[in-house]
Amino acid sequence: MQHIKINVGLLGCGTVGSGVAQVMLERADHLEKRSGIRLELKKVLVRDAAKARTIPSSLMTTCPEDIIDNPDIQIVVELIGGLDPAGEWILHALKNGKRVVTANKYLLAHRGSEIFSAAAANLSCVCFEASCGGAIPIVLALTRGLLANEIKSVVGILNGTCNYILTQMMHNGKPYSTALAEAQQAGFAEADPYMDVSGLDSGHKLAVLASLAFGADIRPANIDIQGIAALQDVDLRYARELGYVCKLLAIAQQQATGVSLRVHPALLPVSHPLASVNGSYNAVSVDGSVAGRTVYFGRGAGAMPTASAVLADILEAAMNATVPFFASHPLLNHRQPVAIIPPTEVHTRHYLRITALDKPGTIHDITGVLGRHHISISAMTQHEARAGAYVPLVITTHEAMGGGVTSALAELGQLPCVSGEPAHLRIWDDYE
Amino acid sequence: MQHIKINVGLLGCGTVGSGVAQVMLERADHLEKRSGIRLELKKVLVRDAAKARTIPSSLMTTCPEDIIDNPDIQIVVELIGGLDPAGEWILHALKNGKRVVTANKYLLAHRGSEIFSAAAANLSCVCFEASCGGAIPIVLALTRGLLANEIKSVVGILNGTCNYILTQMMHNGKPYSTALAEAQQAGFAEADPYMDVSGLDSGHKLAVLASLAFGADIRPANIDIQGIAALQDVDLRYARELGYVCKLLAIAQQQATGVSLRVHPALLPVSHPLASVNGSYNAVSVDGSVAGRTVYFGRGAGAMPTASAVLADILEAAMNATVPFFASHPLLNHRQPVAIIPPTEVHTRHYLRITALDKPGTIHDITGVLGRHHISISAMTQHEARAGAYVPLVITTHEAMGGGVTSALAELGQLPCVSGEPAHLRIWDDYE
Repeated sequence: MQHIKINVGLLGCGTVGSGVAQVMLERADHLEKRSGIRLELKKVLVRDAAKARTIPSSLMTTCPEDIIDNPDIQIVVELIGGLDPAGEWILHALKNGKRVVTANKYLLAHRGSEIFSAAAANLSCVCFEASCGGAIPIVLALTRGLLANEIKSVVGILNGTCNYILTQMMHNGKPYSTALAEAQQAGFAEADPYMDVSGLDSGHKLAVLASLAFGADIRPANIDIQGIAALQDVDLRYARELGYVCKLLAIAQQQATGVSLRVHPALLPVSHPLASVNGSYNAVSVDGSVAGRTVYFGRGAGAMPTASAVLADILEAAMNATVPFFASHPLLNHRQPVAIIPPTEVHTRHYLRITALDKPGTIHDITGVLGRHHISISAMTQHEARAGAYVPLVITTHEAMGGGVTSALAELGQLPCVSGEPAHLRIWDDYE
Repeated sequence: MQHIKINVGLLGCGTVGSGVAQVMLERADHLEKRSGIRLELKKVLVRDAAKARTIPSSLMTTCPEDIIDNPDIQIVVELIGGLDPAGEWILHALKNGKRVVTANKYLLAHRGSEIFSAAAANLSCVCFEASCGGAIPIVLALTRGLLANEIKSVVGILNGTCNYILTQMMHNGKPYSTALAEAQQAGFAEADPYMDVSGLDSGHKLAVLASLAFGADIRPANIDIQGIAALQDVDLRYARELGYVCKLLAIAQQQATGVSLRVHPALLPVSHPLASVNGSYNAVSVDGSVAGRTVYFGRGAGAMPTASAVLADILEAAMNATVPFFASHPLLNHRQPVAIIPPTEVHTRHYLRITALDKPGTIHDITGVLGRHHISISAMTQHEARAGAYVPLVITTHEAMGGGVTSALAELGQLPCVSGEPAHLRIWDDYE
């Protein structure tokens, strides 16, 4: 059997880059045995060549041109992240006819179409399995395995840091700040966790996946994004009593008038397939018109799980499995416009916690506000308290429109019998 | 954008074939919008052309040559099942340069290598996502998404009929015969359920998946297969009390001395990710050296879920995504021999139910037999009974070798204090 020899250059050698380099250097024989491809790591771009690494120093360079302009390199792997210079280097490499592998969800969420067009124009390809869901082959599922389906929804737990924090809050009753500090100590959260806990990272990944699901060019600006930093442990405790767990969900849903796109903490029934995805695991549930529901689980973070996806993409590009259709694949290029449903018009169920004065007329006033905004109560709990004190009133609603709930929350906050802003979480139980 | 036009012929128009034809006839525009491929259904082979169908009669034929020798047809889809004539027709179609899509696990399990070689020799391809796991893109995951991994294990619930029956037995306490009869009435089991309940269908699927996982040519004869027909509801009830559920598992495990391949009912801890896969759902858990554990869920049976996989394969073949590497892919062609570990040498935990005389010395005799065969007890329960009566003694063991347990069971059956054959199930809790 004649094997193909392919030379690879890595832009970036952080956590994932080190993992990719390690497997390529130590397991080249094994990769060849499984794929028929002999990968050779030619060059690795690092910021500081003096820093101690396990990679031979002869492979290291601080000059990106040694990779993107290197005629010996066929596949360029971009793992530095961010918009620039990553985007410029990728476009430059594509212009030089190189195939590109990237894990950069930030870049693809903002400039995916431009980069895919450039790949098509240069008869090349961009493989990006590692941009979403760590080890889970979800890009493969959406672009290939489920290609015959109209996608009704993609619902994911796409950020391992947030899922780790929420798991600690739910299972061990820890407040957000303690759970975050522990996640940082354990290496599951970065020193600056903003991109993760703000929901932006999940939003970028959802932009990539929803673009594939709907064949549309969906940007982070199209997504209603809410993070986990404002979550209070008391609400997670009440949710648990009601039979829910809290997850940061990224949701893309096809509805009659367009698509709804959002990232927010949501309460899931404990029996929901995504409810048992804990710690740094990710999961994606896809509802297709022909396949029905398929669900994918795997490690969402860490050097090796993401390296698995990067290496699969390198082999995919090397096997020439992507180039033949890259330019003509409508989900990658030739995307169509799609109507976005504003958050105010999205129907979901809701959880509300109102700190209310325990006196005659309070429930009447509160339910009056809800009724005026067409919000129907599914369940209501008020724990026993001394009369005259403020007590938490926990309400779950039937499906109600987002705009009505926002208005009702503002009005409730103004009622004399209500103290402070009501707490609000959306419920996700759209499951057979 | 210039779209590719591809003509398709279907061999067989049963449940899955009708689903595939329906989507191709009614949703061709949609398939083209998502894939860039215009599929045209040219001919459908049926056994009885007079039978009423929703397919236009102009498309129907009773002559396979109208498809496999038709110069207008580029992709032949084989959905008749069985070894012959399916195998001969596929080889004939490949010789004619056609690309082949098949859902035939029986054929691939027995003659996969021969058929893949023929495809390679004719510069064609065989796509077979629909052969295993219904809608789940597990062939794609093993051959592409996880290609950089050495596969440590593939563990699946691969037969929807058995899973439906076991779910009824576990959750509703029904005996096997009642659960089977209900499955037949509900259309989840065929009039002759032998291939399903014997474990053979799962064995065929495991042969296909394990061959991909290990790059070896694994046949049903290499697999230790045990079905569900002998299961007793009393054991499922005790298992439930002990915190287990019973599933028919198909297991392929890489171990130090070779691979272990088996299909058998197994007890899983309720917290195991596969334990909550109920009804006709299928699931596969794959443990990879780089990715860690990934798990895939989806509908395992029915016209549409399988049609989703068949259509994905048709599009894959049409997009020319498979042909470039089909001949050189070591997991498809160029498979290597692998050592198979005999069942007698496989270590697992075990569940035993012994009907024992409740008198002094009984436990001593039984534990003596177990000890002589190096079987260490993990837990033991004997429900209270009148002295002198026969009582069920339920034992779970630590890991013990299969051969030792078989010998011990034979010896236990001979003890004067034991009535009848002990019941025996294997436990699967190999999960982090």
